[in-house]
Amino acid sequence: MKEIVIKDVKEGIIADNDLVAESIREKLRAEGSFFINVMGSPGCGKTTFIIRTINELKKDIGIAVMEADVDSDTDARIVSETGADVIQLHTGGSCHMDAAMTMEGLKEFGEMDHDLIILENVGNLVCPAEFDVGANLNVMILSVAEGDDKPLKYPLMFRTSDVLIINKTDAKEAFDFDEDIFLERVRNLNGDIKVFTLSALHGEGFAKWMDFIGKAVVKR
Amino acid sequence: MKEIVIKDVKEGIIADNDLVAESIREKLRAEGSFFINVMGSPGCGKTTFIIRTINELKKDIGIAVMEADVDSDTDARIVSETGADVIQLHTGGSCHMDAAMTMEGLKEFGEMDHDLIILENVGNLVCPAEFDVGANLNVMILSVAEGDDKPLKYPLMFRTSDVLIINKTDAKEAFDFDEDIFLERVRNLNGDIKVFTLSALHGEGFAKWMDFIGKAVVKR
Repeated sequence: MKEIVIKDVKEGIIADNDLVAESIREKLRAEGSFFINVMGSPGCGKTTFIIRTINELKKDIGIAVMEADVDSDTDARIVSETGADVIQLHTGGSCHMDAAMTMEGLKEFGEMDHDLIILENVGNLVCPAEFDVGANLNVMILSVAEGDDKPLKYPLMFRTSDVLIINKTDAKEAFDFDEDIFLERVRNLNGDIKVFTLSALHGEGFAKWMDFIGKAVVKR
Repeated sequence: MKEIVIKDVKEGIIADNDLVAESIREKLRAEGSFFINVMGSPGCGKTTFIIRTINELKKDIGIAVMEADVDSDTDARIVSETGADVIQLHTGGSCHMDAAMTMEGLKEFGEMDHDLIILENVGNLVCPAEFDVGANLNVMILSVAEGDDKPLKYPLMFRTSDVLIINKTDAKEAFDFDEDIFLERVRNLNGDIKVFTLSALHGEGFAKWMDFIGKAVVKR
């Protein structure tokens, strides 16, 4: 088994966050890397989504993943089985990543050249939405098990995301999730958000997301 | 429809948190109120759990509920249909409640006398665990849809909770949730935690929780 690098990262000063985020975007643009920030509640399926995305893209492009958590290296271990370059970031109790923490994580990859860099943010629908981490694409995942009322209660996450993944559709029959009402609530917050409905575990609906992200990475 | 009181609450100074929490416990002890703090991820079923608990207890005791959210009064509206006294607290973007915010919320109930006071904390497995809100009982809920790896990634929540509710067992077949492995991970963090496995939506397994909380309220 590959050894997992665990890096402790510290929160930066909020006032500087947008400046640091912009410098991350410039650095990665110069290096030709496309960077996506994956957010969502604990257990919404972020890791499974990332693994399937990597497995579908890895024969064509180089991929690096930063797994952010308060504790453990569980996700980094699982994701590293794909063959992608993976580091585990520990946030020192912080419930989100910010741009300075992201910059610290990126430095761990050194001179390695990656076409796609993925950050799995801390599982949380509140604070990660407040911090630009310098990504080219902010992706939020919501599992149908969480309920169709979440846009009402966590509006900033839906406002700041470019892509919304409605996940665990394979378990939809077990839940009272009204997708029409949910999407109406989402559109009231963000008319531009791109929505993909899929099962990251079983693959249904995944092709459209792959088409979208494949083109986005090529266009970078 | 009853009008919902919405109260904006502000974060206190962390250093004072434990002092304020202790003064809440003293105040409520003097008033004969038992106070429970309900925590868990977005969509784990906190509101449904609270409503069923109220409906089973309300003919015998007076109940007050504080619903904490970043935005909306969705939960307060639904919970107020039980007939309990309910206020909605808005946390001003904060991803958790602290003791000072809780004290502000409690003041809204004025001289009303309640046997049981319930706080529905902000949906989040990280920061709510860091702040003692003066409760007599910290209850965390985890839905089987979230996965059995959560104790590894959010250990503090499992360490600081007195009660763990494993919820949405009615949907268990749709998920690969290994309860034995999960409970072993939980016990490694907290040997004293009291566990109830149930469906808050349909009621299976709820009687044991009702027996426990009913006795706890009477003993106060």
